[in-house]
Amino acid sequence: MLALRYEDGRLRAAEVAAPRADGEALVRVVLSGICNTDLEIARGYAGFRGTLGHEFVGVVEEAEGARELVGRRVVGEINAGCGRCELCAAGDPRHCATRTVLGIVGRDGAHAEVLRLPAVNLLEVPDEISDERAVFTEPLAAACGIAERVKVEDGARVAVLGDGKLGLLCAQALAALTGADVTLVGKHDAKLGIARRRGVETVRLDQLNAAKLPRPFDVVVEATGSPSGFDLALGILRPRGTLVLKSTFHGATEFDASRVVVGEIAVVGSRCGRFAPALELLKADRVDVESLIGCEFPLAEGVGAMARAAEAGVLKVLLRP
Amino acid sequence: MLALRYEDGRLRAAEVAAPRADGEALVRVVLSGICNTDLEIARGYAGFRGTLGHEFVGVVEEAEGARELVGRRVVGEINAGCGRCELCAAGDPRHCATRTVLGIVGRDGAHAEVLRLPAVNLLEVPDEISDERAVFTEPLAAACGIAERVKVEDGARVAVLGDGKLGLLCAQALAALTGADVTLVGKHDAKLGIARRRGVETVRLDQLNAAKLPRPFDVVVEATGSPSGFDLALGILRPRGTLVLKSTFHGATEFDASRVVVGEIAVVGSRCGRFAPALELLKADRVDVESLIGCEFPLAEGVGAMARAAEAGVLKVLLRP
Repeated sequence: MLALRYEDGRLRAAEVAAPRADGEALVRVVLSGICNTDLEIARGYAGFRGTLGHEFVGVVEEAEGARELVGRRVVGEINAGCGRCELCAAGDPRHCATRTVLGIVGRDGAHAEVLRLPAVNLLEVPDEISDERAVFTEPLAAACGIAERVKVEDGARVAVLGDGKLGLLCAQALAALTGADVTLVGKHDAKLGIARRRGVETVRLDQLNAAKLPRPFDVVVEATGSPSGFDLALGILRPRGTLVLKSTFHGATEFDASRVVVGEIAVVGSRCGRFAPALELLKADRVDVESLIGCEFPLAEGVGAMARAAEAGVLKVLLRP
Repeated sequence: MLALRYEDGRLRAAEVAAPRADGEALVRVVLSGICNTDLEIARGYAGFRGTLGHEFVGVVEEAEGARELVGRRVVGEINAGCGRCELCAAGDPRHCATRTVLGIVGRDGAHAEVLRLPAVNLLEVPDEISDERAVFTEPLAAACGIAERVKVEDGARVAVLGDGKLGLLCAQALAALTGADVTLVGKHDAKLGIARRRGVETVRLDQLNAAKLPRPFDVVVEATGSPSGFDLALGILRPRGTLVLKSTFHGATEFDASRVVVGEIAVVGSRCGRFAPALELLKADRVDVESLIGCEFPLAEGVGAMARAAEAGVLKVLLRP
């Protein structure tokens, strides 16, 4: 089968053997999405080699122990745990110490004709959700995960920094899931407009004047992927406010620890979310993900698709096997 | 009167005019303590000029609007708010945007014969607490403040990194205030012994092997004052654990933000605590602070005392006017 592979420092679309179920499920991929994490892996970070991709929608071909899933349209949570540790026993393998992660850690990913995941990771996609929207379940779940990590009070003032895909999903998810007043801060009128049409306040970065804020923010979500976002966040947070880090920029980041201590700020990392809340938001059409689609490539042109996804300002690039 | 002054880049004990009450209280200082923050200010950080010092015990000489305090032995909370903002109105000026801070921000401090503070900041010291112990109220309150910022569950595994004054106070305070299992990590057997005698587990840094931990820590308090403490903390925290930053090291600190995101760590800054819980711990003799006294100098020898306090391994240096 065809797969988008990263190995020996090289990215290529290649013919490889299709995976065997071996006690897990096999899913024929309908669409997959390119994430910034894919780009970082293809720059050599994270030491991964194999098939890239962790955002997908597909149809189940085999599912040992869960035959009712065969033929169903599904999305899949990306962390596969050991199944035995305390965390896995509690039903949440996201921090299992020996987990594999689809297309990220020790497990071939979704930019392929067929992928393999434990059946327990799969969730059926309601008919109301098109393939083009369902493929956003994983990144939308990651956005929803913020509300799982941080208690966002009704009426709280929340700022999301960055109007890329991640910021647009975080702002919409928080507006839909919480009673907070959410403001998206970005540089691009067209992108800000996507969130504005879903009830999110927006402000251009060059018009954000910390000194003129009516009052500072209770929660700021850093979704710019740039270390400067960290400084900006500290500048607009109230004392004892919460800074949510979503971007996994790699390598050392400089920050002024004394500002965190003196302001008694909480800096909270947030990574993967559960899929169920994201599917509910998609089913109820509470978030606009269609507008986040930049373009679609055939899987065979995956290398070009990755290059396109790396261009500044490009939104989601999809791959179709 | 005599005061230990930092101005024009120079530290000296000098005769200055005694403060006037001007609506606040005047306290004749009995003992004051030198904090690492004093040392940082005297290195030119923070832009403060004036009389240093924010840890003290003294006797009230004047107290407009609170005459019942006159003649009483007191300690004093160090943040003086505007009295009008939302935070001050709620009774907590610690984050008032226009606050002054005793010996740190815009207000002469405690290394002097007499100091001035709002009467509302003063708390009477119970007779059971000697002057030599009462002078630790401020740093002990800062240690207690951790429990105000972070919910520490019964049975939680808590590590405190650093066996200096700050670490010894944090470890003892958390052991006394919470139901956690507290471990102090340090380099000095004698200092670790102080905490061990109060029921805190201790381990030498060179014997701390993250890979051999029975299970990682739920909460780690960084009290080394060294950026390497940050990395060590990330290495021994469980996923979704909490790293408490107590040290106000100045300037940029490098950290690997991706470890915070992937581990979904919460990094929580903690600064000043309320004095009441600290006075209760001292009154009930729940913490050993006497053993933290390194030596005492007359105020006139304040410059030498500061030099002594800056030597590696020296515990609390006290000044007596």
